[in-house]
Amino acid sequence: MTTTPLSPTPRTTVGRGRNRMVVDREVLHGLLEDALVAHLGVVVGGHPLVLPTAFAVDPDGPDEDGTLYVHGSVAAGWLRAATDTTVCVTVTELDGLVAGRSAFHHSMNYRSAVVIGRARVVDDPDERQRALGLIVDHMIPGRAATLRPSTGKELAATAVLAVPLHEASMKARDGGPVDEPEDVAAAVWGGHIPVRRVADAPVADADAVGEVPADVVRRAASL
Amino acid sequence: MTTTPLSPTPRTTVGRGRNRMVVDREVLHGLLEDALVAHLGVVVGGHPLVLPTAFAVDPDGPDEDGTLYVHGSVAAGWLRAATDTTVCVTVTELDGLVAGRSAFHHSMNYRSAVVIGRARVVDDPDERQRALGLIVDHMIPGRAATLRPSTGKELAATAVLAVPLHEASMKARDGGPVDEPEDVAAAVWGGHIPVRRVADAPVADADAVGEVPADVVRRAASL
Repeated sequence: MTTTPLSPTPRTTVGRGRNRMVVDREVLHGLLEDALVAHLGVVVGGHPLVLPTAFAVDPDGPDEDGTLYVHGSVAAGWLRAATDTTVCVTVTELDGLVAGRSAFHHSMNYRSAVVIGRARVVDDPDERQRALGLIVDHMIPGRAATLRPSTGKELAATAVLAVPLHEASMKARDGGPVDEPEDVAAAVWGGHIPVRRVADAPVADADAVGEVPADVVRRAASL
Repeated sequence: MTTTPLSPTPRTTVGRGRNRMVVDREVLHGLLEDALVAHLGVVVGGHPLVLPTAFAVDPDGPDEDGTLYVHGSVAAGWLRAATDTTVCVTVTELDGLVAGRSAFHHSMNYRSAVVIGRARVVDDPDERQRALGLIVDHMIPGRAATLRPSTGKELAATAVLAVPLHEASMKARDGGPVDEPEDVAAAVWGGHIPVRRVADAPVADADAVGEVPADVVRRAASL
């Protein structure tokens, strides 16, 4: 795993809000571990299309600074449109609502990463298997090893796209509002509401057999 | 508020996973009320850029089927790039992790809307004020009315973009996995982990005066 600082290129350089810029790649990897959904942007028919998707990261993947993987049906139009083009993968976690003392200083607490790179279709069978396992394990760590191998038909129906993690930027905000001194002096209340994701107890299918597996129990407890 | 069904155009017609397609516009409005963050896709420098953003909806806004608003600094590059171009605004709520009995049938429960439309800079002062108030109230309902009016300087620094809600599609999934009968027969456990967002108690700034306002208390309780 290489350690190029974040924002290595002009198009991944943070413009506005540089005070919220993150340069440490370990912080990026922490966000990519916490987050469950990515938003993938592709250009289709001359306009942008943004779709939510599961994803996974291999910090030691074959691309510079590691590889981010998404998958989809081989029949999906967005996937064909994305192949060998520059895509944008954005991962955001909302951490709070910031109640400023003016409309202007309302904000949100968040961590958000933007990855820009050329989407490569993963052809190598070993990399594909590994990527699909990582995507399952990103949802429920440890689960991939408990499942039967994918069938040839399943693998043939699934495409995996790889995006290099090299061109990435990240911003983060936390804490309360940054207000105008005169609004603070005017004694308007200011603060923030922390927000987080929780899981409820796992729900077994009606025809599920046996206890809830340890990996599922652990995942629910860790969200 | 008009009631065109969702997916009114080819580019907002759901391709894969039509069984998860939503056509009822009221369901879309429910999602847009629940969600706090949108992902805005624009084409910048020939490639897609996806950024997280606050947003608000005016179901009775001036555009066909209502208006979605986002705002940003007038100096932001993405905002200039988006103006008068076709953008994509995607809003996703994660509702659960689906532990299928095979890697292939792992999935997520979610609600996600994709809005495609031409981004219009809001010039009309009344519409701008209203949109900015809606964005504050979308974060914390009722708060806009408790704040001083925005200053001319604040308004001059803020651009508001409007996107028509007409060209929208939505997909939703809930419940457990849809597995192969042979995997169910093989007695592998299957089920799902419900996921939701919660708020912790509001945190007052060190120099905040008085009680936490009722709107902030209500918002924290409603998340």
